[in-house]
Amino acid sequence: MSTIPDSAVRSFLDLSRDAFLDELAEWLRIPSVSADPAHAGDVRRSAGWLAGKLTETGFPTVEVWETPGHPAVFAEWPTEDPQAPTVLVYGHHDVQPAAREDGWHTEPFEPVRRDGRLYGRGAADDKGQVFFHTLGVRAHLAATGRTAPAVHLKLLIEGEEESGSAHFTELIRARADRLSCDAALVSDTGMWSAETPTVCTGMRGLTDCQIDLYGPDQDIHSGSFGGAVPNPATEAARLAAALHHEDRSVAVPGFYDGIVELSPRERALFAELPFDESAWLRTAHSHAALGEEGYSTLERVWARPTAEVNGISGGYQGPGGKTIVPSRAQLKLSFRTVAGQDAEKIQQAVREWTARLLPPGIRHEITFWGATRPCLTPLDHPALQSVLRAMGRAFGEPIRLTREGGSGPAADLQDVLGVPVLFLGISVPSDGWHAPNEKVELDLLMKGAESAAYLWEDLAEHWSAR
Amino acid sequence: MSTIPDSAVRSFLDLSRDAFLDELAEWLRIPSVSADPAHAGDVRRSAGWLAGKLTETGFPTVEVWETPGHPAVFAEWPTEDPQAPTVLVYGHHDVQPAAREDGWHTEPFEPVRRDGRLYGRGAADDKGQVFFHTLGVRAHLAATGRTAPAVHLKLLIEGEEESGSAHFTELIRARADRLSCDAALVSDTGMWSAETPTVCTGMRGLTDCQIDLYGPDQDIHSGSFGGAVPNPATEAARLAAALHHEDRSVAVPGFYDGIVELSPRERALFAELPFDESAWLRTAHSHAALGEEGYSTLERVWARPTAEVNGISGGYQGPGGKTIVPSRAQLKLSFRTVAGQDAEKIQQAVREWTARLLPPGIRHEITFWGATRPCLTPLDHPALQSVLRAMGRAFGEPIRLTREGGSGPAADLQDVLGVPVLFLGISVPSDGWHAPNEKVELDLLMKGAESAAYLWEDLAEHWSAR
Repeated sequence: MSTIPDSAVRSFLDLSRDAFLDELAEWLRIPSVSADPAHAGDVRRSAGWLAGKLTETGFPTVEVWETPGHPAVFAEWPTEDPQAPTVLVYGHHDVQPAAREDGWHTEPFEPVRRDGRLYGRGAADDKGQVFFHTLGVRAHLAATGRTAPAVHLKLLIEGEEESGSAHFTELIRARADRLSCDAALVSDTGMWSAETPTVCTGMRGLTDCQIDLYGPDQDIHSGSFGGAVPNPATEAARLAAALHHEDRSVAVPGFYDGIVELSPRERALFAELPFDESAWLRTAHSHAALGEEGYSTLERVWARPTAEVNGISGGYQGPGGKTIVPSRAQLKLSFRTVAGQDAEKIQQAVREWTARLLPPGIRHEITFWGATRPCLTPLDHPALQSVLRAMGRAFGEPIRLTREGGSGPAADLQDVLGVPVLFLGISVPSDGWHAPNEKVELDLLMKGAESAAYLWEDLAEHWSAR
Repeated sequence: MSTIPDSAVRSFLDLSRDAFLDELAEWLRIPSVSADPAHAGDVRRSAGWLAGKLTETGFPTVEVWETPGHPAVFAEWPTEDPQAPTVLVYGHHDVQPAAREDGWHTEPFEPVRRDGRLYGRGAADDKGQVFFHTLGVRAHLAATGRTAPAVHLKLLIEGEEESGSAHFTELIRARADRLSCDAALVSDTGMWSAETPTVCTGMRGLTDCQIDLYGPDQDIHSGSFGGAVPNPATEAARLAAALHHEDRSVAVPGFYDGIVELSPRERALFAELPFDESAWLRTAHSHAALGEEGYSTLERVWARPTAEVNGISGGYQGPGGKTIVPSRAQLKLSFRTVAGQDAEKIQQAVREWTARLLPPGIRHEITFWGATRPCLTPLDHPALQSVLRAMGRAFGEPIRLTREGGSGPAADLQDVLGVPVLFLGISVPSDGWHAPNEKVELDLLMKGAESAAYLWEDLAEHWSAR
């Protein structure tokens, strides 16, 4: 057992709660919308505000790091224990756009505390989940009587996550020395639910592309020429249809090469989650489940690589009919990848597959937008065990495991810094990320701080990365 | 041989040529664009202008027939021979839109005579080909000394062909008594080339539709949900891809039921045409020939039924990528039919095929825009033999046979009036129908008039429809 007493942490949190929430609300008032150039000054103001709070929290080093886009905030608090690991906490201080007329019940940048929740853009994604770390480390120090955390603590809070993290890789490459650590802890994900607290162990990777198909040099009359020349809309459709086998597995040759298959243990853990397909379909706004044969819905979205048609277009799209063979068509495809897959090999496989399937008379161009790698924490990693214990103490029950189907900068931390990535997030699906009326559950926010307070102690006790 | 002397016809035409071309130019100055409501007055003016000229030509009955859209012109000139057949000439007096900035070298509605051609919107499609009949019947009368044509002649010149002939079927149904005839002669098609004069013997039918596919109720995140719910863009692509077998024949079950197959004789006649695939591909603005295996390019476009994707759309279409499972997708499909196919059965087959291919969770709607039937003149029909002889005299060489891949109101004449449809057109592929710089070759225009002059005589001599 950890030497830090639960009661001391909890009473500190209880006493600090109101002031903490007032400060978070102050931060939420800054509309740090990174996608909108008009808010560039607000993103900068948000970085400065956070830097000030981290200094107040006690971090001896706090720096605003410039990028060609919006600034990030870096903070560092060395431990006194030379054997203790170094942990880098990742989050972001920019937010999605929001406007009252999108369906918000109150002004998105005038936070409101109501019914145990704090409403406002960024409440859960990600300001709330960044800010609980300031409270967590203070509780950790207060309860243990330490003057520095049990682990060497670093924070990197970026300002461009909601607009694609355009300069993030560049930033962490350039600052790799300052960011060196034994593990990264991402606080930008969620849990299964308030009743079923979970830890994420991995995210899928992503590589996406556009395929432009060119047939006739202009739209031509389908009566005069149809049936005798290749039609790029038909060929785009044939490509998109050929992406999957009849069993809905991906049909691009080599796509599954080298993948880390789901272990029976992880499949069993997923199967234990209280999954309600009807409820899940409602969150998906969908009317049926459909995917790769032989896998459950959770396995399909969390742990299986996929190919998706994000967009298709070609020919006439106005009202009524127009009897043409169109000149052009376009496909936008994305591929989600899992550990073991190599995005470059997949890109090459897609290029070869496309070239092989298209008939003479159809010229094509493929543009890949880039690649985000998948990340996966081994289930037996000692740092993951620490996260599970720390959250287990805070929540008073066993923590289950999930993954995330999406893709994010976590993979960059893993790849550039060469460390395992852990996840500590307390948001729940109803928090409305990127949607109107985003909120965070106040009790869960405090559980996040409590988990962090235990985590630094547990990591120092159970894991020496040296 | 016909009793009408060639030399008499030709000298009449030579003498009349300049005045005829001046009058045609006057008609081309009226921008009778039926698709543009702003030109409704011009379409009406065009009808009035033509009615006046038909009266001047000598037609004892000339009427402007109102429709709920634009007016048609009807004219009738009874023959003195009670045994002679009645022929109804079909054409249209409305034109496609045209604007100088589309690439016209001169104003589209200020016709210019240059290098043996008359440039202007409607020169070939279809005012020129309607107007040569006024000259043709005058030459016929002048050369034979008749006071009435050798056949009972009727003309129906519609005003809505370029905007879909919305009221044409209704009009000819309502006026079927007045339009009763033994054959319809459509002057709204073209020939293989000036060097290879041809007669068309059939047109394909058409039925086209829109299929709307609905998946998630809104676009959803492809990371969170992709690979586990049906994607309407993927399903639209699977439908479009499933339209054809690998050999590019149409895969909708029952599609070919009952079709009149190409006879070996007609295939041999098509094969005799001086077909240059490279040149044809240039007119198709295409870079390869591709179509149903076992058929030549001409057979594919003239005599084989086809399925074509006219438009496909779904999901994100802007710049870059967007990782969504789209909420909706849409297909626009058209089916060209040949004699023996039943559009209603095909529509039903497409409905059943669509419903069977789509997975649960994808809702769909199919809207068929309507159907135009195919038409086909039997090669041994005596009236077709007359057309071949009349044109053969005018052109001084044997006339070859073609078909048209497109679809048109000819089929309505065939179906509503219950008569065979013949084609007499002198336009050539370079005339630029629906394109900038439309023109007609003046020599061919005169050959059209000459063919008509011989035709009435030949029909009366060789064909008694009674």
